[in-house]
This record gives sequence, structure tokens and C-alpha cells, in this order.
Amino acid sequence: MSNIRRIGIGLLGLGVVGRGVVRILKERSKYFRSVRGIDISLSQIAVRDLEKPRSVDLPEGILTNNAEAVIDHPDTQIVVEVMGGINPTLDLSLRTLELGKNLVTANKALLAEKGELLFKASDKHGGTIAFEASVCGGIPIIRSLVDGLVANHFKSFYGILNGTTNYILTKMSDSGSGFDEMLKEAQNKGFAEANPTLDINGTDAAQKLAIICRLAFRKNLSTKQIFKEGISHITPLDIEFAKELGYRIKLLAIAKESNNKIEARVHPVLIPASTLLANIKDEFNAVEIVGNATGPQVFYGRGAGELPTASAVVSDIITLAERRLSNHTSPKISWSGFPKAVPVPPAEIHTRFYCRFTVYDQPGVLAKIANIFSTWKISLANVIQHGRSETKNGTVPLIITTHNAQESAMQQAIKQINNLPVVTEKSQTIRIEEF
Amino acid sequence: MSNIRRIGIGLLGLGVVGRGVVRILKERSKYFRSVRGIDISLSQIAVRDLEKPRSVDLPEGILTNNAEAVIDHPDTQIVVEVMGGINPTLDLSLRTLELGKNLVTANKALLAEKGELLFKASDKHGGTIAFEASVCGGIPIIRSLVDGLVANHFKSFYGILNGTTNYILTKMSDSGSGFDEMLKEAQNKGFAEANPTLDINGTDAAQKLAIICRLAFRKNLSTKQIFKEGISHITPLDIEFAKELGYRIKLLAIAKESNNKIEARVHPVLIPASTLLANIKDEFNAVEIVGNATGPQVFYGRGAGELPTASAVVSDIITLAERRLSNHTSPKISWSGFPKAVPVPPAEIHTRFYCRFTVYDQPGVLAKIANIFSTWKISLANVIQHGRSETKNGTVPLIITTHNAQESAMQQAIKQINNLPVVTEKSQTIRIEEF
Repeated sequence: MSNIRRIGIGLLGLGVVGRGVVRILKERSKYFRSVRGIDISLSQIAVRDLEKPRSVDLPEGILTNNAEAVIDHPDTQIVVEVMGGINPTLDLSLRTLELGKNLVTANKALLAEKGELLFKASDKHGGTIAFEASVCGGIPIIRSLVDGLVANHFKSFYGILNGTTNYILTKMSDSGSGFDEMLKEAQNKGFAEANPTLDINGTDAAQKLAIICRLAFRKNLSTKQIFKEGISHITPLDIEFAKELGYRIKLLAIAKESNNKIEARVHPVLIPASTLLANIKDEFNAVEIVGNATGPQVFYGRGAGELPTASAVVSDIITLAERRLSNHTSPKISWSGFPKAVPVPPAEIHTRFYCRFTVYDQPGVLAKIANIFSTWKISLANVIQHGRSETKNGTVPLIITTHNAQESAMQQAIKQINNLPVVTEKSQTIRIEEF
Repeated sequence: MSNIRRIGIGLLGLGVVGRGVVRILKERSKYFRSVRGIDISLSQIAVRDLEKPRSVDLPEGILTNNAEAVIDHPDTQIVVEVMGGINPTLDLSLRTLELGKNLVTANKALLAEKGELLFKASDKHGGTIAFEASVCGGIPIIRSLVDGLVANHFKSFYGILNGTTNYILTKMSDSGSGFDEMLKEAQNKGFAEANPTLDINGTDAAQKLAIICRLAFRKNLSTKQIFKEGISHITPLDIEFAKELGYRIKLLAIAKESNNKIEARVHPVLIPASTLLANIKDEFNAVEIVGNATGPQVFYGRGAGELPTASAVVSDIITLAERRLSNHTSPKISWSGFPKAVPVPPAEIHTRFYCRFTVYDQPGVLAKIANIFSTWKISLANVIQHGRSETKNGTVPLIITTHNAQESAMQQAIKQINNLPVVTEKSQTIRIEEF
């Protein structure tokens, strides 16, 4: 091809994802040159420790510990930020954009928390931000939302956005073991970090959902506006009863828009065992997007890891390179000017519920509990109470599922039920989602 | 937005998909203008019958029965071909491209059979061809292959590409009814055409697979080079035995590349019940693409219908409009210069097999059949032979699954087995695919 154009990449960070980016750029360089007409070269790579041994081949002198110099380098046209965290990546990203350079980032936390600032700088100075790797790793979900499904108004979104929690819930379901044990296994196998708090409590999924909501609904929704509940209270008993009822338990990120209000939440849910999302196993991610024209669509793949994440980063590099080299002037993705989202207050959300009560095995217990639900106008769908063989210290588990109930009424009812003398432990409630 | 640019669309055809395109362009016009900066207007619409009542609102005088005039119209910059068939769409598409105009097509048959001609004209005269709607309707699979997964070398592809056959197989599995009855139901519900031959015999899926193979492997593979077998010989008995063995039966389009040879085939297969593809129900489509960086990815959604297909067409219109309006000069998708594919000859393909023999219920039958398999060096994995309750005219079904066997050896073995006096009917063989 005669008109091959060069584009220079400055890389910030050479951890797991950065190493993957270097590997793919090398392995695919001939393809990118001959098929896409783009000659990608690494200008410089910023690392914290120049002496650390690296498991990729690198040209001599390409490493520096001066990140600003990588951005400012005259050969750097696209800055690829794969350091993670908000400090110093926010300053470095703003520096990139203020120079009118393009930014590729895999940093969901940065985008979710500081996206408005970044897009404002992008709008002002002309550089583009691409962030396919920030949600669902290698799955091309961002470009599908923005371009592939551009003909659609989005009604709802359901996502398994966090691999760590899906791995733990899968292994709990397969083995019957408890949360703590399976978290340890996930840590041993590299699917959970040493400090897994942000994964386990739903923060990671909520940050990704905040990005999705901005793209899908074109409203400015902060992570704080997303209702969030983790998975550490889920027990093997709940997983077993869910199976008996025809459900699986997953940590889902859910977003819906109606009457100009956004309902966005991350929490464990029972979903019907026959749905695709119920069958997503181990560390995989999947999202179901319901567009008004397409109907439901599901995208599935690896949401993390060296090469899956680097695959998304490199796809952004190619798109930005083509855009830059052809003076592409069509509007960019930006959420700097979006109106503030109006979230549905958590207390007003309606869902079905699964409840597990630990009660003394004596007459009249079910009547007492059913009475309280009735007081709060919550109607019951299913009741499971097995024989006395399960008795433990004279108590048995009593499972009740409800029809749609308002969150605030449910909380009041559970509070009263927890105060009944026949109820011996704090009751378990998990939402049910049918779709 | 100050810099809104106009783009004129000439529509060829106003059937189901054409109507969907008109509807979406109208419904989303404000979004396209305010967010993407594009003002899309329909210049003219070519129809066969000017008098036919139309269920969409149309500006007066926009209909014509002169397709050439629609293409030549000075306001037509993008021609959208949603007529289907190869005549006269080939001539009309070439005319479009020879004028240097852009072509959006939903026409898998045209692309699969005449793609080289079209892309040659596109390369010569500068117009771009976009064809997201030609494979899997509303699922953004073409742009995912080309852009979203650009960092990947593709290893293999598995697709449920035909909604009609998946609907029939699902209903056979759910109801236990036979093929003919469920075909009729599919026709009644609008999921099968009056003449369903091209769907049922695998041609439709093979045409889509030919398009996928060109994009994934960058080789020129014709539909004729794809091994093809339909679903009309599948019986409820096979579906039941498949379930017993832990499988589901699906019509899959499969493509793999190794040693520079392409193995491409469309036929019914037993796939493990736990895979996502086994759980794709009714008329839905799904594809599993295995990239070397991403690992397996699955895309799922509606593969046909007014709005899903129109969604893909409109996404192409927006992409081409943005490309055109910004003088985008990066390389286009084209397969005019691809080298010819070297297909693996069908006789040399290795797969596992499910075999159902109808045999007299007498001693020594299994030994005779096993002996023949042994002669052809085919080793057996499972044998199912139930009690005599299933006997029909003194015969029983005998199910054997094999380990990997070469197609040609298998055919020889089956021929010999069919000649055994204890075998009373032509034996059934269905391939097994593990992934």
C-alpha cells in the first residue's frame, strides 16, 4: 500500500495491560500496515521503576520514569493510559488533552469519577478520548452502543460487569462452598485481588455502569447515584433455594430509563436459570442491552486479563489513528454537556424479592410473617418450607418470594419480621429480576 | 450544533426492511441531527408497484418505479439496497458504485455470490460498501469483526446464522414433534417463508458464512466451497437421544483456519447443552468468535425482522455519512484483492459423530457394527441401547457416538453398516462439535 501513514503512541504504564498492548502492536504491526495503512510506533513508555525486569522485548531507551515527557514527546500523537487509579492519571490525561492529543484509556474509575472534566478538556482542545477497555475488557461494547446500535433508543441494560464476583458465585454454586472459601480460591487463581473490596462490594461494577448509563441514556449519572450492594452475605443455602425455585444468583448491574428518570443499581439478584446471563460462568462478563429496534442483544467475553483488555485498547488506537489521519471531523463521543440524570430514589424502586427467614419450627410462624407482608401490601408468590430434617437448634429456613414490592415497604416489613420472637436470625433478602 | 451536514439517501425497495429504515430515519432524525451532526433526507424510493398501499408516511412524489433514477438523482449520495435477490440488484449496485456513490446493502446472496465484482467497482471508483445487515440482522457483527476485534487473529467461528432453522429445532425440542409439523408452525408464525428451501438446506447460512470467512480470514471463499447439509432429516428421536447424552442439536455454521487452509461447513451438530450456543432459542441468532487475544466472544440477538435489520442498515448509513462528510480516507473493507481460499476437502474433515442405527433386537448386532467401525479405525465413545420397550416391528434404535473420525472413513463405515442384514433402515449420522 502506497499511502501508509505513521502514528506515534506514548504508553503510560507497563503493567499487565501495557505489556499486552506492546505485544499486540508488535504481533499485528504488519497487518496494521498492509491492511489499515497505519504504521504504529511506540515513542516512549512511562514506568515507575526503570530497573524492573520486563517480560517483553523493548527497543533500547524507550523506557522513562518521566510520564510528562512521554505525553509531550513530539512523536506522541496518541497517549495510552494503562496505569489505573485517579492520581496521577487525571493530571496526565488532562495534560494529554490540553495539548490536543488523543487519549486511549482503560481506566473505568477515572472515567466514572472524572469523565466530565476529561470530556470538557477534549471538547475545548480537540483531542479525542477512547475507552473501549474501560468496560468489559475485550468485548466491543462501547463502540456497539455508540455506533453499531446508533439506530436504537435504549430501554434497559443488564450486565455481569465484574469477573471476580461472577467467578466466586459460580464456584459457590458448583461446589456448595461458602463465600469466604471461594474468595480465597479466586485470590489463589488470580481472579481476585489481594484487596478485593471494590470488586466484592459492587463499586467496580457501579463505575462501569455509570459509564454505560452516560452512553446509553445521555445523562450525567455519577457512581454515587447508583444503588449498590455486594455479594458477601450470599450463602450456599440461598444458592440452593434459588436453584429449587428455578433461578441462579448473579451480581448484576441494572439500568432502566422511564419517564426521564434513571433507575440504576448493582446488587445480587435471582434471575431465571434459562436466561443467557444465568449461564455466564466463571470470570466471564456479559451484557444484555435492550434496544427499541433490535430487541434484546447479548455480548459475552472476557472482561479482564492481559490480552483481552489490550485487544480493546489496540482497537481504540486503530480507530483514533484512522480518524486522525483522515481529518475525521464528525462529532466525538463526549459527555461534557449532558444534563444531570434524575435517579429513581432507591426507596421507590419496585422489584420482586426472595426472602429467607430462620424461624422456630412451630405452628403459626408462617401466618405471623404473612400477616406482616399483608400489612405492607406485599403479596407472596412462593413459599418453601421443607420437613424437619433441616432443623438446626430447633430452627428451619422458611423461603418466601414476593411479587413486585416497593423497596421501602419491603424494608419496613423485614424490620417487623426480624423483631418477631419466632425469628432467630437477621432475615436474608435478595432481589429477583425477570427479563 | 452549528455544522450540521446533509446527506441524501436513495432507497431501493420498500418491503419489510425498507419500511423499517424509513421508520427509524424518521424517529431518530432529531438525534442524528443534534448528536451526530447529520441531517439525513430521503431523495427517492424505488418500488415495483406505485399503487400499492404503504403503511408508512411518505412525502408526496418520493416513490418511483425507476430504480436507475433513484441512483442517479443528484441528491442521492448513499444508495440503500433492500430489494433482495441478485437480479436486478447486481446491476443497480454496480451502477451505484460506478458513479462513486456509497452502497448500503442487506443482501447476503448478492455479497456472497457477487462480492468480488462489487468490491472491484468500489476500489476503482471510490464508493464504499457497507453490509452490516447482511449477516445476523441487528447484531453488530461485521463492524465487530473489522474494527472492534481488529487486534485479533481469528481461530474459529461458530454461528447460528439462520433463524428459521433455529426456530424449528427449538420447537421440535420443546414439543417432541417432527420436522414437517414444526416447519408448518414456523410458516404460520412468519418465521419461515412459503418456500423455505434455502433456509432449511443451509444455503442461507452458507452465504452468510462465506461473508464472515472473507472478513475473518481475508481469503476469497465462495459459497460453493462450503460443505452444506440441511436439517430436514433430524427426528424427535435424535433430539431426545442428544439430550440423554448431554447435547442439543443446532444448525451451525462453522469455520476454522489452520495451516492456511479453511474448513468451512454448515450442518446440524450436537453441541454440549451447557454452551451458550446450545441455549439460543427460537428465531434468535448468535455467533461465537474465538480471537487469539480476546478468547471466545459471543454475540446474540435477532437476525431478521423489520426493525432489527433496519437497525443495522441505519447504523451503516450513519457510518458512511460520517465517513463521507469528513473525507475519511482510511482503507475501506474490500475483498476484491483477496487470494483464493484453499478449503479443506470435505472428505478430509475430522469430527466426532452421533450415529443412530435401526437394528433387529437380537444378539451380536452391536459386535457386528463395532467390528466395522474398528476396520475403519473409528473408535467409539458411547453406546446407548435401551430395553425392549422401544421395540417397533422387532427393531430398536442403537445409538453410538464416536471419537474424532475422518469424514471419508465414516462414510465407508456407514455404507457397510447399512448393508448389514440386521440393519433395517438407512442409518442416521449427525456430527458432534465440542467447544
